[in-house]
Amino acid sequence: MGKIELEMSTHSRYHGGSMTPLQKKRAAFAPPVPDILENLCEVSFSRGEDTSAIGDWKEIKTHFPNTFARPVLHLVRGGEKHTSQKVRVGVVLSGGQAAGGHNVITGLFDGLRRLHPDSLLIGFLGGHSGIINERYRELTEHYLSPYRNQGGFDMLGSDRTKMEAPQHLQKALDVIQKLQLDGLVIIGGDDSNTNAAVLAEYCIRKGCAVRVVGIPKTIDGDLKSYPLLACPFGFHSACQTYSEMIGNISRDMLSARKYTHFVKLMGRSASHVTLECALQTHPNLALIGEEIIEKRQTLNEITSQIADLIERRGNEGKSYSIILIPEGVIEFIPEIKGLIDELNMLLAQEKDEKSLSMTSKRVFDLLPQKIQTQLLLDRDPHGNVQVSHIQTEELISTIVKEKLNNRPSFKGTFNAIHHFFGYEGRSGFPTNFDSAYCYALGHGAALLIDGGYSGYMSCVQHLKKNPREWAICALPITSLMHLETRKGKVKPVICKTLVNLDGYPFKYFKDERVKWAYGDHYLYPGPIQFEGDPSYSECVPKSL
Amino acid sequence: MGKIELEMSTHSRYHGGSMTPLQKKRAAFAPPVPDILENLCEVSFSRGEDTSAIGDWKEIKTHFPNTFARPVLHLVRGGEKHTSQKVRVGVVLSGGQAAGGHNVITGLFDGLRRLHPDSLLIGFLGGHSGIINERYRELTEHYLSPYRNQGGFDMLGSDRTKMEAPQHLQKALDVIQKLQLDGLVIIGGDDSNTNAAVLAEYCIRKGCAVRVVGIPKTIDGDLKSYPLLACPFGFHSACQTYSEMIGNISRDMLSARKYTHFVKLMGRSASHVTLECALQTHPNLALIGEEIIEKRQTLNEITSQIADLIERRGNEGKSYSIILIPEGVIEFIPEIKGLIDELNMLLAQEKDEKSLSMTSKRVFDLLPQKIQTQLLLDRDPHGNVQVSHIQTEELISTIVKEKLNNRPSFKGTFNAIHHFFGYEGRSGFPTNFDSAYCYALGHGAALLIDGGYSGYMSCVQHLKKNPREWAICALPITSLMHLETRKGKVKPVICKTLVNLDGYPFKYFKDERVKWAYGDHYLYPGPIQFEGDPSYSECVPKSL
Repeated sequence: MGKIELEMSTHSRYHGGSMTPLQKKRAAFAPPVPDILENLCEVSFSRGEDTSAIGDWKEIKTHFPNTFARPVLHLVRGGEKHTSQKVRVGVVLSGGQAAGGHNVITGLFDGLRRLHPDSLLIGFLGGHSGIINERYRELTEHYLSPYRNQGGFDMLGSDRTKMEAPQHLQKALDVIQKLQLDGLVIIGGDDSNTNAAVLAEYCIRKGCAVRVVGIPKTIDGDLKSYPLLACPFGFHSACQTYSEMIGNISRDMLSARKYTHFVKLMGRSASHVTLECALQTHPNLALIGEEIIEKRQTLNEITSQIADLIERRGNEGKSYSIILIPEGVIEFIPEIKGLIDELNMLLAQEKDEKSLSMTSKRVFDLLPQKIQTQLLLDRDPHGNVQVSHIQTEELISTIVKEKLNNRPSFKGTFNAIHHFFGYEGRSGFPTNFDSAYCYALGHGAALLIDGGYSGYMSCVQHLKKNPREWAICALPITSLMHLETRKGKVKPVICKTLVNLDGYPFKYFKDERVKWAYGDHYLYPGPIQFEGDPSYSECVPKSL
Repeated sequence: MGKIELEMSTHSRYHGGSMTPLQKKRAAFAPPVPDILENLCEVSFSRGEDTSAIGDWKEIKTHFPNTFARPVLHLVRGGEKHTSQKVRVGVVLSGGQAAGGHNVITGLFDGLRRLHPDSLLIGFLGGHSGIINERYRELTEHYLSPYRNQGGFDMLGSDRTKMEAPQHLQKALDVIQKLQLDGLVIIGGDDSNTNAAVLAEYCIRKGCAVRVVGIPKTIDGDLKSYPLLACPFGFHSACQTYSEMIGNISRDMLSARKYTHFVKLMGRSASHVTLECALQTHPNLALIGEEIIEKRQTLNEITSQIADLIERRGNEGKSYSIILIPEGVIEFIPEIKGLIDELNMLLAQEKDEKSLSMTSKRVFDLLPQKIQTQLLLDRDPHGNVQVSHIQTEELISTIVKEKLNNRPSFKGTFNAIHHFFGYEGRSGFPTNFDSAYCYALGHGAALLIDGGYSGYMSCVQHLKKNPREWAICALPITSLMHLETRKGKVKPVICKTLVNLDGYPFKYFKDERVKWAYGDHYLYPGPIQFEGDPSYSECVPKSL
C-alpha cells in the first residue's frame, strides 16, 4: 500500500527502549474486557428503541434522510456462530487530546484482528487533514505496542480541521475509495462526531458502503446521552489529574494558612470538570456556570458571594480558601456576555469602548485594567474578543480584593494565588477506567463495522459496574443533534450537554457545599494509581 | 499538661472517616526501616571525622564556642545493651511545606516510644511562633495515625518566624524549661537549621541540657552536604509531581504540535529542581541558573539561544517545544540583577526609571511593558522589587517572540503557553522514598536526643540503596555554615548548595541536551505510584 509517513522520530525511540518504567509497565498491561466480548463470533447487535433527535427532527431529517431515526443497538449473545469478512479500516484522532485515545485504536485493532486475522488498520496522520491530504500509515502490532495504555494522541497526531465542506467530503470519499476502506473510525468530540454523521450520510448518498463510526471523546465531559453515553472518554483521567493537584494545593493551603487559591479548570462552556473535581476534593467554593445562568447571577453578585465567604472565614481565623472556576464561566455571566457581544460589534466598526452602552460601560469600568486591555487588544483571527484568553481567575480575584478592601468588617488577610489546569490533564496516562473504557469502545467500533452499521457512535453502558459487566451498544449520531446557528447558518449539530441542575451529582454538591465552605473538609485524592486496592485503582467518575 | 489547641476541625473529621481511599491506604502503610534500626537498644552513635565549617571557621567558632568542630556521628551496632530514659520531646515544622514532614514526626514518635514507652512528644503549633506563643499539643498515636505517610504540614501547621533575636531565644528556653523538654526537633530548611544551631548553642551556654536536633527539609534541594546529606526530604516528591505534569504537557504538545510551553519551576535560587525534572522528562531546553552565572550569559544571549532552538525546530516542521525555567534564574542574569539593584536604590530615593544608568535603561527598555510595570509597581513590604513575582516565563517568551518576529529566516509558528509549578509539589503524598527517608530521619532524631547530642542534624546515608541498607548518621549543623551578610550584618548561616557544574548529574544533562533539543526525546514519568514494580514505586531522585 502507498503511504506517506509523518516525521515520527519518537516511534523508533520507543523500540530502542527510551521509555520510563511506568511507560513500559503500562504498555504491557491488558485492560479488562467486558464478558460480552469474550467470543466475538457469537455476538451481534440487536435492534433497540427507535431514536429521533434533540432538536427539530423534521429539519434534521432533511439533512440525514438515510441515517436519521435509526434504532439504538445493543450487543447481545446468541444466534448462530458467524464468520466475519476481512476488512480494511481507517482511524483518525480529531481535536483536543484526551487520555485513552491510543486505547481506542488498540481496542479497534485487536477487535478487527479477532474478527478476522487478515483485517487491516490504517491510521490517518495529523487529524482530519490526514484524510484530506492522504497522510496515513498502516498500523501493526509492532507499531502499536508502545502506545498501549499510554496518554496523548502522538501515535497519529491530531488537528482541528473540520470535514464538512462539500469538497472535503468528496475528497474523503475519494480517499476511502482509493484505499478501499470498509470502515472509518472518527475519534473526537461533538463536532468531530457531527462530521462523522455528515460523512456517513454523504457516503450512503454516493453509494459507498463504508461504515463511518464515531467515538465519544472529550475531557470537557459535555458529550453525553443518558443512559447509553454516561460520559465521554478522557474525562475521568483529566479530572483525576486536576483533583490530584487541587488536593495537593488544598493541603498546602491548610498548612500555610495564608493564601486564597483561585483554580481555573479547562472544560469549555460546561462545568462538568469543575463539578467532578469539587466532588473529589471538597473546595470551599466552586462556581457552576449552569447555575449562574439559571439564577442570572451578575458579576457583582458572584464576586460579592466570594468576598462574603472570604470575609467570614477570615474573621474566623481562616485567611485561606480554595475556589474552583470553570474556564467557560465568563460566557455565562450575562453582563460580561453582553459586554463582549457589544465590544465585538464596536470593534468590527472600528469604534472603541467609549461607544459602549451605559450598561456595558458600567461593567467595563468595573473590570481590572489588565482585563480591560485584554478585552480591547487581544483579538482572534476574526477580530473578536478572545474569550478563552480572559484570565477569569484574575478578573474575579481582583474584584474580590477591591470589595474586601472596602469592608471594614473584614478582619482577615487576602493573598490570592492563581492557577490554571488544562493541558496537564489531557495527555497523561489514562486511568484504569479510561484504559478499559477506550479498549471496549474500540472493540465496539470493530463490531459496528463488521455488522455493517454506519453513522453510529460506539458506546459502553453500565460504566459504574465492573468492566466485565459492561454492555456494548451504539447510538445513531443524529439522535444527539439539535439545530445551532454557526457562522450565520442554521445547522444540525450534536448538542453539548450542560450540567443538569436536577441531577444527583449537582444536588449532592449543593447539599454539601455550605459545609465545605466554612468547615475545612478538603479531600486529597492523590496521584492516579494503577495498582493496589480497587477503591483507588479502579475508581470511576463521581459524577457518573 | 497544659495545652492550647489550634483550631483543628480537620482532625476530628479524619477519625470520622472523611479520607479518600488512598489517604486511608497510605495511613496504614508501614515504611521500610533500615536494618540498623532493628534493635534500638543495641545501637549507638560512634564518633566519626572531625568537622569545621564551609566559611571562615575562626569567625564561625566565635559564635558557636560550645558546638563548633564536633565530629560527624555514625550509628553503629554493638556494645552493651542499654536502657534508655524516658524523655519529653518537642517538635516543630518550620517554613515552606515539603512532603514527608508528617513522617519525620511519626518516625520520631515511634523511635522515642521504642526507646522508652513512656516518652512523650509535644507538637508546637504554627511553626516557631508556636514555641514563642506556647501553642502546642501532646501527640498521641490516635492523633498521629491519620497523618502517617500523608503530605502537608497541617498536623501542626508551620510559619516563617525566625528564632534568632535574643528575646526569642530566651523565650524558647523558658518554654523548653517550663515543659521540661529533653529534646527539641526542628524540621526545616537552611534558615531553620541555622536557627536550631543557634538555639542549641544558646541552651548550652545557659546551662540547659535540652538536645536541639535539626532535620533537613526543602523541596528546593539546596540543603546538601556530600556524602552524608545527599538531598533534603521533600525534593523527590516535589520533582516527581512536577515531572508528571511536565511529561503530560510534553505528550500533549507532541500530539498538538503547535505550542511552545514555558514551564517555570519553584526552587528558589538554585536550579536543582529544574535539573532533576530535566533528567526525568528530557525537555527541549532547561535553563540552569548556575551555568548562566558561570558563563555570565546575558538576557539577550539566553533569549537568542531559545529563539535559535525554536527557529531550527520550526524550520524542521516542529513548531512545538518545551522549555524549563528555574524560578530563581532571574537573579542569575547579571544585567537583570543590576537593573533590580538599581531600581531598588532609585525607588528608595523616590526616583523612577528615568534615572537609571545607561546600561540598566537599555535592559529596562528591552523588557515587555507588562514586566516593566511589574518592576515599577510591585513592591515587597521593604519597598523592594518583588523578584519572586516577576513572571520570568512570560518575560523570556515575550522577548523570544520579538526576536522571532524579526527573523525572516524563521518559517515555523510560535504560540507560547506559560505554566508555573510550585504549590502543587510541596504538599502531595510523599513518595515511598520520602516516606521511608523521613521516617528514618525521625528515628535518627530520637536516637540523637537519647544519646545526648545537641546542635546536630539527623541524616541518612546511602539513599540510592534499598532502605534496609541505609545508614543513620548526623552532621554538626555548624559544619554547613559560612558567613553571609543579612540586613547589613555578617552572620554565620548554613550555606545553600547550588548545582555543582562538575557533578555527574549536570554533566550527564550537558551531554544529552543537544539530542533532547532537536530530537523529540520526551519521557513520561506519569503519576507517583505507591505499589507495583520497584522500578517506579521505589525510585529515587536521578540527581542523587
